[in-house]
Amino acid sequence: MVAGAAALRAGLAPPIGCITESPDFRGAGLPGFGHLVFGGHDVTSTPLTKRAEELTRSGVIPPPLAELVRPALDAADSEIRPGATEGGSQGAVARRLIGDLAEFRERRGLARVIVINVSSTEPPAAPDPAHLSLDALEQALEGDIPVLPPSSLYAYAALSAGCPYIDFTPSTGARLPALDELARRRGLPYAGSDAKTGETLVKTALAPMFAVRGLAVRSWSGTNLLGGGDGATLADPAAGESKRISKDRALAEILGHQVEGRTHIDNVPHLGDWKTAWDHITFEGFLGVRMSMQFTWQGCDSALAAPLVLDLARLMARAHERGVAGPVAEFGFFFKDPVGSNEHRLHAQYESLRQWLGQGA
Amino acid sequence: MVAGAAALRAGLAPPIGCITESPDFRGAGLPGFGHLVFGGHDVTSTPLTKRAEELTRSGVIPPPLAELVRPALDAADSEIRPGATEGGSQGAVARRLIGDLAEFRERRGLARVIVINVSSTEPPAAPDPAHLSLDALEQALEGDIPVLPPSSLYAYAALSAGCPYIDFTPSTGARLPALDELARRRGLPYAGSDAKTGETLVKTALAPMFAVRGLAVRSWSGTNLLGGGDGATLADPAAGESKRISKDRALAEILGHQVEGRTHIDNVPHLGDWKTAWDHITFEGFLGVRMSMQFTWQGCDSALAAPLVLDLARLMARAHERGVAGPVAEFGFFFKDPVGSNEHRLHAQYESLRQWLGQGA
Amino acid sequence: MVAGAAALRAGLAPPIGCITESPDFRGAGLPGFGHLVFGGHDVTSTPLTKRAEELTRSGVIPPPLAELVRPALDAADSEIRPGATEGGSQGAVARRLIGDLAEFRERRGLARVIVINVSSTEPPAAPDPAHLSLDALEQALEGDIPVLPPSSLYAYAALSAGCPYIDFTPSTGARLPALDELARRRGLPYAGSDAKTGETLVKTALAPMFAVRGLAVRSWSGTNLLGGGDGATLADPAAGESKRISKDRALAEILGHQVEGRTHIDNVPHLGDWKTAWDHITFEGFLGVRMSMQFTWQGCDSALAAPLVLDLARLMARAHERGVAGPVAEFGFFFKDPVGSNEHRLHAQYESLRQWLGQGA
Amino acid sequence: MVAGAAALRAGLAPPIGCITESPDFRGAGLPGFGHLVFGGHDVTSTPLTKRAEELTRSGVIPPPLAELVRPALDAADSEIRPGATEGGSQGAVARRLIGDLAEFRERRGLARVIVINVSSTEPPAAPDPAHLSLDALEQALEGDIPVLPPSSLYAYAALSAGCPYIDFTPSTGARLPALDELARRRGLPYAGSDAKTGETLVKTALAPMFAVRGLAVRSWSGTNLLGGGDGATLADPAAGESKRISKDRALAEILGHQVEGRTHIDNVPHLGDWKTAWDHITFEGFLGVRMSMQFTWQGCDSALAAPLVLDLARLMARAHERGVAGPVAEFGFFFKDPVGSNEHRLHAQYESLRQWLGQGA
Repeated sequence: MVAGAAALRAGLAPPIGCITESPDFRGAGLPGFGHLVFGGHDVTSTPLTKRAEELTRSGVIPPPLAELVRPALDAADSEIRPGATEGGSQGAVARRLIGDLAEFRERRGLARVIVINVSSTEPPAAPDPAHLSLDALEQALEGDIPVLPPSSLYAYAALSAGCPYIDFTPSTGARLPALDELARRRGLPYAGSDAKTGETLVKTALAPMFAVRGLAVRSWSGTNLLGGGDGATLADPAAGESKRISKDRALAEILGHQVEGRTHIDNVPHLGDWKTAWDHITFEGFLGVRMSMQFTWQGCDSALAAPLVLDLARLMARAHERGVAGPVAEFGFFFKDPVGSNEHRLHAQYESLRQWLGQGA
Repeated sequence: MVAGAAALRAGLAPPIGCITESPDFRGAGLPGFGHLVFGGHDVTSTPLTKRAEELTRSGVIPPPLAELVRPALDAADSEIRPGATEGGSQGAVARRLIGDLAEFRERRGLARVIVINVSSTEPPAAPDPAHLSLDALEQALEGDIPVLPPSSLYAYAALSAGCPYIDFTPSTGARLPALDELARRRGLPYAGSDAKTGETLVKTALAPMFAVRGLAVRSWSGTNLLGGGDGATLADPAAGESKRISKDRALAEILGHQVEGRTHIDNVPHLGDWKTAWDHITFEGFLGVRMSMQFTWQGCDSALAAPLVLDLARLMARAHERGVAGPVAEFGFFFKDPVGSNEHRLHAQYESLRQWLGQGA
Repeated sequence: MVAGAAALRAGLAPPIGCITESPDFRGAGLPGFGHLVFGGHDVTSTPLTKRAEELTRSGVIPPPLAELVRPALDAADSEIRPGATEGGSQGAVARRLIGDLAEFRERRGLARVIVINVSSTEPPAAPDPAHLSLDALEQALEGDIPVLPPSSLYAYAALSAGCPYIDFTPSTGARLPALDELARRRGLPYAGSDAKTGETLVKTALAPMFAVRGLAVRSWSGTNLLGGGDGATLADPAAGESKRISKDRALAEILGHQVEGRTHIDNVPHLGDWKTAWDHITFEGFLGVRMSMQFTWQGCDSALAAPLVLDLARLMARAHERGVAGPVAEFGFFFKDPVGSNEHRLHAQYESLRQWLGQGA
Repeated sequence: MVAGAAALRAGLAPPIGCITESPDFRGAGLPGFGHLVFGGHDVTSTPLTKRAEELTRSGVIPPPLAELVRPALDAADSEIRPGATEGGSQGAVARRLIGDLAEFRERRGLARVIVINVSSTEPPAAPDPAHLSLDALEQALEGDIPVLPPSSLYAYAALSAGCPYIDFTPSTGARLPALDELARRRGLPYAGSDAKTGETLVKTALAPMFAVRGLAVRSWSGTNLLGGGDGATLADPAAGESKRISKDRALAEILGHQVEGRTHIDNVPHLGDWKTAWDHITFEGFLGVRMSMQFTWQGCDSALAAPLVLDLARLMARAHERGVAGPVAEFGFFFKDPVGSNEHRLHAQYESLRQWLGQGA
């Protein structure tokens, strides 16, 4: 994402995959790629240049480009602070994260900081009464026992620092009543969850086709093969569960009924950054005649995700500018499990986003 | 189609695949299945009951249903008149067809007759100056040399008899300036061409996904395997050409640029009424990373087409009622090559149809 | 199987899918279809005619054929005895089963009875010291606690009654040291396990292609969607485990090394008797270039299995005639997990079977 | 191929895809990679280093390897002579080619030179009486009108220079009676045609599976999408025809009967060196039940072809050593259209090759 933004800024690559650069959005006055400054929190200390090298080896970043964007990667690296790994109460950790965010904003003279969770997927969080109100949460944060999953601790820190928060993963993030309360009280927007970049993207474009044609979908089965870190994380039954729930929601909402079939997520390390998804659909037509459809999607997850992160940063800047408080339902276009909305049909989501952006023009 | 309408009327089958029975359309007061009366012109004399038997053998019509709808098939058979095969001028043939249509309407006391071309695909028609104006056409029709392809002769007869005309095939039909002039002069609606029931249906649902995500489609290749009469007709290069033109138009319109790749149509008699289409798409994402998608559609053409014919008959009745003259662009949802519209995106077409129907409500 | 044998006997259907009717085997003097008499043990009381009706509804048995083979089904039904469901010691149950088999053989004047397990897949059996020797087993069978899984109890009964035994399923069957001892002591052949009718059949034809071309397979992932009773049984994690173990063995044996990837078995009731398998393979070529292959198999399980049961019955008759004692390794061609052999390559198995049959000629 | 041989020689890459390095062949004493010297005739003057750069850009040759094998590419480049493009009689051109080959052999002190045609596919050659005997051919070569297609002129030159000849393409090459006569008279082996590297490789592994299982294949349809120079050449109907004939022969030979279906070859430049083939097969099982299978093969043509060229060079050296005269039928394993053999089943071809090699051991 950092490498790509640098390439776009320097005109070294066309903005393929960036929605906010399409004709429908280009005139909306969103912040330019040249106005974005990157920083972050990270629990590992692998420098971005090293990650870019891996992406070059696996064919995602072309070798000459990797060379040219190295200064931009170094610059971002110098703004990365340690993730939330220290001991002590979660409240103390949060105060350190809040301080980092505020210091970054002030030192670099930024209009605003958008916090986006792009870390590994967590298992579903256990429910806790402290999740239900901000007061209860802030009290519990000072205790010895962690009350928030990491994604939610970062969301708490972001919102407390006055920063909009976006969850690019299926982790809990800001989706707790206490954090929603915090966002609304502070007048801050948040969005999520779980960017749709492959199988679910296709699903939410295709399922409405069956719906508008009155074809009765009976089963929808999916197998996702992926390598990289994501493969290993999601093949873990607990974390995979978060993803599966997030993936399966869309279908029933679009079709209006449950269908047979399961979704598998398999770790196939040999695939590296590439992901292959096979979906098989059975449906009935006139007089109950049985038919089927199947598709195979072969995509590069990093290359599909990176431009969406940039798009979301730019769009969230506008939401913040407009003073939106709470979930931005109109960003559902980007997500498998859109907070604040039950609309999963891709094209309806696109219209909704386009209209939202046009409103303020 | 006749068997299915009888089954729906008798409540023997749910209206799967009938758009006009979906919640979005149900309240629009369209004519009920029980109000439809079937007749037609046919160049062969194979009775409908025999065709229904073939469909039963190939698994399209369930055996018990075939038995129950036999009276409805016999009734429709008795209203089928010989197609345009006689000698003489095309004008004389047209007058016989017009007479058949008027006689059917009067004898059965019908509010209106909708003529739908569901015959085999013709090769593209050679251009002729007589196609350019109604006067020139009517003069040429009285000559010895046929000036219209069969589909257009039926369209001429339909419109001359005061009947709306729909082209379910890629044949020329009403798409000549002279016939458009006739439709407008008589205040009659027409629609077409080439119902999208399989590969193109999926294409027009999927291609917009790439477009709204800013993913750069580079190639789209398709292979269609089909048996039945359709396979034999379309494997003929001339007729297949009509279909291919009709199929390829949508993609460039949706994506805004030409892409690499061809569409093949192969006759595989062993497939019978079933059709298998394989489409392969290559596209680029962020930083030019190459990805691909492929899908296989396995559908039963008769079962996909029949409910659309019923839908179109019902909707065209409403267009006639409203006095629409000329092409009904809002029926583009049904067609590969929508007359009167360049909109090919399935979901945009659906919205347009829904709004059109709602207007008169 | 019974319906098909009757159809073949009467010349109502060609012997498609019957190996023993191919030119390579036809002259071997195997017992004719007209010489087979069917009977069995069944824990349910659903008559064969009713099952044939279901197969007719789902398109497996053509309606006219179903009518014609009804007497053959009734005849077989009258020879079906209750399965092993009664209380009491397993030894007592076995004695009843042995009596049934002997009575069937004598009353019908049969040269031999071949027992084939075509029941639902069991979970893997817990190991037991009594499985290790015939003496220990026979002692344990008289106790109150069941020591054998049902498939092995039937195998014990079959062998004790002097009948060869074949396991068409991945259940334990005769694959216990005690039962192997029994077979050898009685001079009886047995064979198994788990007929390969779909995904594994293709796997064992394709994997050798990669091997002989020196292409390095890195992952092989599979998803099996199936309905019917089999889908429900195998989606149960315990029974599915038996199947998966049996399915995965072949690949490592053929390629000579383990590969990444999992095999899923999903229950999709809507598919009925049809099974869809998708396999995805990644491999490396020269200089480590990564490539992939995928296939989708859409087969009807009953129609694939039935002729193999007939083939096995005919071939086992020959093995019995020849006095083979213990596992018939040369029948590995039919099985996912061939007892007595590590050869999984389909074409090598075929050659081995062909040579075995030719020996006695 | 040159780059790969250098990498293998230097131990920089494992011999993936090289049959002659598999355990079955390793002990046969074939010439080592270090004993091969490369030269050639080429109608273009693009240096090998430049081609290697293109292959690096498209991901076939890893960047560090490209650097290390540069001296080997330069060495081979210096042994490349102009192809047959000069004017004058074909006889005169042949004499120049023969001189080049002899000079190369002598100057480098080589035991033998194997000539392998890896140029673009030609259209099928027009028959000519001069093709029928060596005398007639040699007379015609001195005339003004070209009598041989280029591939056959090279084959003539190779055999005349005492060099075995292999046709890696579907072009005519040595497959003319006059050239067969030349090979036999000179005691030289030749082999071909048209290496099977993708779709046909899979076909000849899979079709025997249907055959041995008695499943009745009814249709086999294929679509090949390929870019690179090959795509452009083969999409030309004339050259494509050579390929299609060559591709379709195998199936009927293996199954023993013709089947429905066509094979398409499409040029999709965006695919570059990668090839995607989709095959769709319909077949009948027991009682005529209809089933289907489909596969998609995604391979890199250069990486699949290169090791086979090396294998053929090594094996042909052995054939030459043994004094084989005429076609080497046992090399059919490598070819879509094996000269001297009707055996197309991959595994039978492998056995035949293995036995041939073992004979001389």
